[in-house]
Amino acid sequence: MSQAKFIVIEGLEGAGKSTAIQTLRSELERSGIERITNTREPGGTALAEKMRALVKEEHADEALQDRSELLLMYAARIQLVETVIKPALAQGTWVIGDRHDMSSQAYQGGGRQIDESVMSSLKQIAIGDFKPDFTLYLDIDPKLGLERARGRGELDRIEKMDLSFFERTRASYLKIAESDDSVAIIDASQSIEGVQKSIQTAVQMWLIEQKG
Amino acid sequence: MSQAKFIVIEGLEGAGKSTAIQTLRSELERSGIERITNTREPGGTALAEKMRALVKEEHADEALQDRSELLLMYAARIQLVETVIKPALAQGTWVIGDRHDMSSQAYQGGGRQIDESVMSSLKQIAIGDFKPDFTLYLDIDPKLGLERARGRGELDRIEKMDLSFFERTRASYLKIAESDDSVAIIDASQSIEGVQKSIQTAVQMWLIEQKG
Repeated sequence: MSQAKFIVIEGLEGAGKSTAIQTLRSELERSGIERITNTREPGGTALAEKMRALVKEEHADEALQDRSELLLMYAARIQLVETVIKPALAQGTWVIGDRHDMSSQAYQGGGRQIDESVMSSLKQIAIGDFKPDFTLYLDIDPKLGLERARGRGELDRIEKMDLSFFERTRASYLKIAESDDSVAIIDASQSIEGVQKSIQTAVQMWLIEQKG
Repeated sequence: MSQAKFIVIEGLEGAGKSTAIQTLRSELERSGIERITNTREPGGTALAEKMRALVKEEHADEALQDRSELLLMYAARIQLVETVIKPALAQGTWVIGDRHDMSSQAYQGGGRQIDESVMSSLKQIAIGDFKPDFTLYLDIDPKLGLERARGRGELDRIEKMDLSFFERTRASYLKIAESDDSVAIIDASQSIEGVQKSIQTAVQMWLIEQKG
């Protein structure tokens, strides 16, 4: 396989993205892919991490406006895509992304209910037609996901939203996943071993497709 | 005059915006307007000032992308409009803005040559049809303006752009000013006294129009 690819892990809080990223990386390495780099969003560059901090922190006296949050997310994404992801791919390094644009579509479009026309024109302004070659979406009931996330400790500003927010976000994730051939849906309510197996199978099937 | 208004001072570096703001404020006070607040852009709220810092600072290892800069500017503008300007106007407080949307149109649209369609759809996403009631654009040849700005000391990242950038920015400022009835053009190459007089006249004429 000659051309480096951009593969993204997506899903709600507590879906098991960190473990999935490790599984994906091992699976790629087992298939002979040596040059792999990891990114996370929002963030992944010095400037984008500063933008991430603005989105994540609690603001005592000033509410971060939904559309302002959305623009910060896209400003961070532009920095990451232009200064990290595209250069890595151009040099033959594969990129594993912890979240990418699908998160904005699901959280800001679905969860916060920002107009679809706003979402699509902003995406076009920011990154044009750039998109991942393959996405693994870890699907989980938000009740279970948030329970797992709470077990890990502190929740940030977004993770403190109410359950209906995450239910809208999940519905949006599923809608996109079902309409996009480059997205595989993984049942993240399984045991860790079960999820790992599903990821391995999905990745191997995708790698075979790429060769074919 | 019952309704509070939003008045903006615009212009290139070294055009004399700070002095113009003082002149404008005195002129409004002289006309019996008591409640006036000042804002500046980008910035003007705690969060927006953090976004401003990201735009203004030098980034050693990572170039701030033009479109990322643009989104940061608009994220800051949303915070300022929604949490400061609109609430002030609603409470009967006049607002004097040190820069507003015209700066983005001129610097990012004109100077950085970002597509007009991108500029207009982003503006619509961020602030919709919100706009100043009156704008004083201080017109100056960038050669003279930058000379004045340099006399004040350090230049920031944007102020270090080359002359052609500022020439495009000025051309864009003039194009907007000439097509928008709510913008008065002030010749900022005059002496300080001359500029003050021009501002006083423009403000008085506008105030009379408002009463008529």
